[in-house]
Amino acid sequence: MTGTDIQATVSLLTELIWKRDEEGVSGLVAGLPPADTALVVSRLDASDRCELFELLDPEAAAGAILNLKELAPHTLLARIAPETAARILHELPSNLETDLIAAMKPAAAEKVLELLSDRETDEVKTLARYDSDVAGGLMVTEILSYAEPTTVGEVVEDLRKNADVYARFNIQYIYATRGENLLVGVLRIRDLLLSEAETSLGRLVLEEPVTVDHETALEDLRDLFDRYRYLGLPVVADGKLVGVIRRAAVEEAIAEKNARQFRLVQGIIGGEEVRTMPVSVRSGRRLAFLSANIVLNVVAASVIVYFEDTLASLIALAAFLPIISDMSGCSGNQAVAVSMRELALGLVRPKEVLRVLGKELSVGLFNGAALGLLLGLVAWVWRGNPTLGIVVGLALALNTVVAVCMGGVVPLILKGFGVDPALASGPILTTVTDICGFFLALGFATLALSWGFL
Amino acid sequence: MTGTDIQATVSLLTELIWKRDEEGVSGLVAGLPPADTALVVSRLDASDRCELFELLDPEAAAGAILNLKELAPHTLLARIAPETAARILHELPSNLETDLIAAMKPAAAEKVLELLSDRETDEVKTLARYDSDVAGGLMVTEILSYAEPTTVGEVVEDLRKNADVYARFNIQYIYATRGENLLVGVLRIRDLLLSEAETSLGRLVLEEPVTVDHETALEDLRDLFDRYRYLGLPVVADGKLVGVIRRAAVEEAIAEKNARQFRLVQGIIGGEEVRTMPVSVRSGRRLAFLSANIVLNVVAASVIVYFEDTLASLIALAAFLPIISDMSGCSGNQAVAVSMRELALGLVRPKEVLRVLGKELSVGLFNGAALGLLLGLVAWVWRGNPTLGIVVGLALALNTVVAVCMGGVVPLILKGFGVDPALASGPILTTVTDICGFFLALGFATLALSWGFL
Repeated sequence: MTGTDIQATVSLLTELIWKRDEEGVSGLVAGLPPADTALVVSRLDASDRCELFELLDPEAAAGAILNLKELAPHTLLARIAPETAARILHELPSNLETDLIAAMKPAAAEKVLELLSDRETDEVKTLARYDSDVAGGLMVTEILSYAEPTTVGEVVEDLRKNADVYARFNIQYIYATRGENLLVGVLRIRDLLLSEAETSLGRLVLEEPVTVDHETALEDLRDLFDRYRYLGLPVVADGKLVGVIRRAAVEEAIAEKNARQFRLVQGIIGGEEVRTMPVSVRSGRRLAFLSANIVLNVVAASVIVYFEDTLASLIALAAFLPIISDMSGCSGNQAVAVSMRELALGLVRPKEVLRVLGKELSVGLFNGAALGLLLGLVAWVWRGNPTLGIVVGLALALNTVVAVCMGGVVPLILKGFGVDPALASGPILTTVTDICGFFLALGFATLALSWGFL
Repeated sequence: MTGTDIQATVSLLTELIWKRDEEGVSGLVAGLPPADTALVVSRLDASDRCELFELLDPEAAAGAILNLKELAPHTLLARIAPETAARILHELPSNLETDLIAAMKPAAAEKVLELLSDRETDEVKTLARYDSDVAGGLMVTEILSYAEPTTVGEVVEDLRKNADVYARFNIQYIYATRGENLLVGVLRIRDLLLSEAETSLGRLVLEEPVTVDHETALEDLRDLFDRYRYLGLPVVADGKLVGVIRRAAVEEAIAEKNARQFRLVQGIIGGEEVRTMPVSVRSGRRLAFLSANIVLNVVAASVIVYFEDTLASLIALAAFLPIISDMSGCSGNQAVAVSMRELALGLVRPKEVLRVLGKELSVGLFNGAALGLLLGLVAWVWRGNPTLGIVVGLALALNTVVAVCMGGVVPLILKGFGVDPALASGPILTTVTDICGFFLALGFATLALSWGFL
């Protein structure tokens, strides 16, 4: 759709909503290309958007919610009638249902939970206890498990009877259990095809299957799915089967984690921002990061104030201070990116600070020499002052070494202390490298002046 | 494993490699926790690593390759005997096999291709024609398709006979075709369970299934999988079935795209860097970005040189120039991040520059006022000079508006021109905002001086 089409669709949809035309609304939303659903819905007025979800049938509404994951659908669900919200939530996979209810305000969540069946409420409450980046928080509880004496015929009969329910979820495996839900083995659904109806599951299943503990971290889950080609793995707590985690859920969580990391580094903190949010929310969140940053900047700049006499005697240096600041920040950020990547891939452990320091030192020395030489030559040729060249060249060279080494180890140290490296590495790095860079440049200039070279 | 364990494992593995102990090596690698495979293998000497893959049986080697995806396994495959490489590649899913062969140097790739069957070679060559971020580049060609008159019994018989082959791939759907591979319909494997052996596929399949064109872009694929709950979708070219794309492959590609975006923004260009690469490669790649950046920095700083007389008369301003530069960069980067996210999610189109400009203008005005006021007060109180406060406050306020608006629209414009916003947005943004910020601050100071306020 082009820009004009979107506007036309939004207008048409708004009209249908105002007419409370349930069929028209459902038909229009179902007919939208998937790529446009979020775009069109996001352009509706907030009140029309709520009205829309009251009008859609629950299944269509749930489908649309899956396309709106990035638009904070929990706020939408909290604003519509709890009965409608509960019906929509019921259609969603259990982990998404839980995430949305957990994100709602307690009062709204409570109202919705009261309307769900006891079993569903229990499930949601169990899932809600997990962090979103461990197996328990990423698994779904929609599983097919049977006691091990169950026969293939009985399973097929159950599949046939409940085809409607099972079709809504992507179930690939059948689990055999013993006693109180203790996992015995696993079977792919298609293996049922190759078996006689009288055979018991216990005799067919692969025993001692690969399982994941409910507390397994996201990175370890990714490694597991890299190694094994399964589409899903059973999640156990104390040997008991509690859910199944799908490969796609792990990949999706990794994608979201990478995206969040990117946003944090770019100074988007306090949650995702989309431009349909009110200006006050967007400004406020951005200012939270910016005002902390301005304080750090003032601290770093106070080095310059301290050397003001030197700078007054060598005013040509002033143009090079922002260059040294920016270049050191860039060099350091490259090392930060490599460390964060290696941490995420498990190629380095937070404790290996010395190893990383050694690896970065060589890059820092090489790049420091190259950049220092380059900037020194520029300063000399441009301003016709060889001493100025030596001062800025040497300062950039040394500060590059500092920045590269710091950039390499800061993410490890932060991770070791349980702080998200994406949020804090940048500000810490640039503050220190600014202080150090200004100090080196102005310090060398002071020395040069006192020795009579300038 | 702790740091010590890793070192011990690496030593033990090295010893086994030197002894050419095939069983010992395979046993050790198979027994490693998945999270440690990449770590241990990455710490081997380059030659030992090649030797390792010669010793492992092909299936185990293929499994290890899946864990080493981020460590440029194509260089490894290019260095071992082509026969071994071909056997390992044969074990991998077709899309990964193709990616690896395509990444090898032409001579090495040619040798390996000669050793694969004609059919496999054709497949690889077909897949290699696609970009890695369209359906054709992400699909696998391992599909189960049968002519529509085939009966359920015949399909089950085929599944039974080729269970070994099919087990290696995650096949979930059966496709019915007509004539020369024209897609007629789709069936989940488990639906075979509920059908009589004599029924033909043509009568069972869901007709007119959701398909994706082979050129469909990654973002559209994500939207499709968000809307439909399928685990895989058939890929067609001119109505002909050419492959199947799995949900997990799309999620993985999105995760990788997010990670690459993050690296580009942080100045890691020319491919991923890990610290086991030689220093020359790492330094060289990082310098490619840094040396372009230093040129842009010098251009921006020339504004300061132009105003040196003003700066000499108001040396206190020097400390605020890096602050204005850094803060404007941060404000702009926030807007860049929001635009890139909205582009990725399809919430904004590259042509909607005016809409984004309007949305960012309000945030820019608000945050500019807040930050300008803050910095102005700091300058006034710290340096006891109200005019200095007005100069730097006004400069930061206006420059924040410029930076926020620019940050919002630059990614859209770059995307419109087909340039990756992650690579170019940052340098373009900070160069312009530096020039503009220096010009505003020094320009206001010049005016204040000429009016006798300073």
